[in-house]
Amino acid sequence: MREGLSVAEAQKIILEAAAPLGAETVPSADGLGRALAEAVVSGRTLPPEDNSAMDGYAVRAADLATPPVALPVVYEVPAGVHAPRPLERGEAARILTGAPLPPGADAVVRQEDTEREGATVRFVISPEPGAHIRRAGEDVERGAAVLDAGTCLGPAHLGMLASLGRTSVAVHRRPRVALLSGGNELVEPDGDITGGRIVSSNSYTLAAACREIGADPSYLGIARDEPADIERRLRAGLNCDALVSSAGVSVGDHDHVRSVLESLGCRLVFWGVKMKPGYPFVFGRFEGKPGPLVFGLPGNPVSAMVTFEELVRPALLAMAGHRALHRPRIVATLGETLTKKAGRLHFVRVRLERQGHEVVARTAGNQSSGVLRSMTQAQGLLIFPAEATRIGEGEPAQVQVIDPTFLASAGSGV
Amino acid sequence: MREGLSVAEAQKIILEAAAPLGAETVPSADGLGRALAEAVVSGRTLPPEDNSAMDGYAVRAADLATPPVALPVVYEVPAGVHAPRPLERGEAARILTGAPLPPGADAVVRQEDTEREGATVRFVISPEPGAHIRRAGEDVERGAAVLDAGTCLGPAHLGMLASLGRTSVAVHRRPRVALLSGGNELVEPDGDITGGRIVSSNSYTLAAACREIGADPSYLGIARDEPADIERRLRAGLNCDALVSSAGVSVGDHDHVRSVLESLGCRLVFWGVKMKPGYPFVFGRFEGKPGPLVFGLPGNPVSAMVTFEELVRPALLAMAGHRALHRPRIVATLGETLTKKAGRLHFVRVRLERQGHEVVARTAGNQSSGVLRSMTQAQGLLIFPAEATRIGEGEPAQVQVIDPTFLASAGSGV
Repeated sequence: MREGLSVAEAQKIILEAAAPLGAETVPSADGLGRALAEAVVSGRTLPPEDNSAMDGYAVRAADLATPPVALPVVYEVPAGVHAPRPLERGEAARILTGAPLPPGADAVVRQEDTEREGATVRFVISPEPGAHIRRAGEDVERGAAVLDAGTCLGPAHLGMLASLGRTSVAVHRRPRVALLSGGNELVEPDGDITGGRIVSSNSYTLAAACREIGADPSYLGIARDEPADIERRLRAGLNCDALVSSAGVSVGDHDHVRSVLESLGCRLVFWGVKMKPGYPFVFGRFEGKPGPLVFGLPGNPVSAMVTFEELVRPALLAMAGHRALHRPRIVATLGETLTKKAGRLHFVRVRLERQGHEVVARTAGNQSSGVLRSMTQAQGLLIFPAEATRIGEGEPAQVQVIDPTFLASAGSGV
Repeated sequence: MREGLSVAEAQKIILEAAAPLGAETVPSADGLGRALAEAVVSGRTLPPEDNSAMDGYAVRAADLATPPVALPVVYEVPAGVHAPRPLERGEAARILTGAPLPPGADAVVRQEDTEREGATVRFVISPEPGAHIRRAGEDVERGAAVLDAGTCLGPAHLGMLASLGRTSVAVHRRPRVALLSGGNELVEPDGDITGGRIVSSNSYTLAAACREIGADPSYLGIARDEPADIERRLRAGLNCDALVSSAGVSVGDHDHVRSVLESLGCRLVFWGVKMKPGYPFVFGRFEGKPGPLVFGLPGNPVSAMVTFEELVRPALLAMAGHRALHRPRIVATLGETLTKKAGRLHFVRVRLERQGHEVVARTAGNQSSGVLRSMTQAQGLLIFPAEATRIGEGEPAQVQVIDPTFLASAGSGV
């Protein structure tokens, strides 16, 4: 097992192991946010027939070569209905937007450019052939490649599938993620927190972080620091696609998770990532037999969230078949000077403030890895590179934006 | 009823009418993405007691004033357990991370700075009082304002609620949105599309657009162009928070929706917004009696999506209690010259391409309001102001980013 990898090395190894999951067929209406596991080819021509782009009159353009011309209105074509018969020379048909063009007609004159007089309509202009006609296939030709595999399905894609008559669609499976907390000191939120016990908040933060990206968390509960209890709970997660355990705050003496994983056939690929918060991270996988990717996170609330963010989230997105794996990133200007020792990459919780064209980043309160409150206030994680020891006030730094509302505009821009 | 408003006027009137909905109490674990309807004040001190930040030994600092010093290890304090008795002068206690500090102890010495010899531990350093102790209340003091009303609940906030023992929380209600399609030519996706009939894709695009922002759509079906059918369906949506109808492509002759709305007591506030796609938009509200905000959208698929985007989506977000109402906006450089007539603001469907520090915008295919395909390809809506007639290639323009994956980074930045 390798030890003490850089964040970049760790991400690379994990993403190489995180293959897209297989496909499943879902009702198209349930496909929002899923990644297409098929290339969608149109089985239809859309629109299927030439039709009118306007409310007006279908005509033969040659009849109106020398306006003004008055023609009898021989029938009306509403949308959704075919003309009762072809349009003959010297005839006009009332036609509404979207209605199929009568055979024989080759142009539409807008209502505004006509004068209706009883059963007759008077034209004051001479249309080009093809005027105000939407051609069959203008939107989609039959056989056209409409959506690429890997497309993340949004509202327009679902509308397109509906238009194509596709009531079901193949998408990549959502990763099922088993979440295990471990530590004798952990209790559920309604538990007693006297005697140094603390709420196991990681199962809440990590379940929400899974749901936010469309992964499907299941909770294995809080394991006591005993191999038998840990093994029983881990076994219940072996049929998932990923297993995410977070230790209690007390690592070391009481950490049996790793040895139990190995006894179950999990190969531990690496241990320790040169980052802060979050050094004690383990990545494992089952080889030669089916089993989840295994992510062992540190127990401190912030360490668990930040290692999930950097090392688990991109993998789950890749497993779901998505191509966009990483948070939006901006260059921010430091609002204060940061210093640290060389060796580990620090992810600094920051507040972000727009000042003109700049974004200024300042640390979000207490950076202790036990202080979840600063994580509730952070809008970004500032990347303080491993070998850097100082970023001065006014200097630029990369910031991963973890609060999507920060990117929203204050106004619509109109 | 006012007619022909600017987009900005229309947005202003709608947002003034879109008040945050009332509160409901939900299990905290279900609160992801909801807007807090209460200010959360801590009922707990976190951590509740002074505890050890490290695995090591709890001591009285004064005992180690002149190292090296060897002390007897009188007991062990794991996390989650109180010490069996106070620590007396001349004693050390083994202590694990997170474990409560024994009464009498005032410092922790890290394991790495000690040598254990059977029941005795030898210290080679002299700690400051308070060393490696996490103080009670370091994260949160009892009575502290932890989360503001209006906060959009993300993973960290849900973890914080769990830590505070808050298993339920008050959030603003999700807007219930009734969706009605109208037009004799419309069929469901599995319907027959011969004879100029078309699939009612708007119910799919708009339902997905609602779900994307946490609103709760319900579908009233396709109304025939007959007042009785329209009225029957609209009545079924009157207990929702918003009613969004989209006409068939054929507006004008067959549009009974507005008159039915008025007969039901809806006051039509304005009609027509100077935008393209999407002029024929109507906004109404019930006054003096309960009823939904009413949004009448044009029937063309792109017109329906763009008017929803600009005039309905911000209102639904405001009703859900959110503060971030508008899409991220960037300044892009035109990759081609755009021209139009003055008078209406155009929302131009564009593809976006990063080129160094710039983003270049180019139109996404056919801009006809019937061509949904270009909407599946668009990553942004470029704002071509109402009175402008030309934006030249290489010139800047504001773009609302509607494809969230465009903002994702290609890498993690580490």
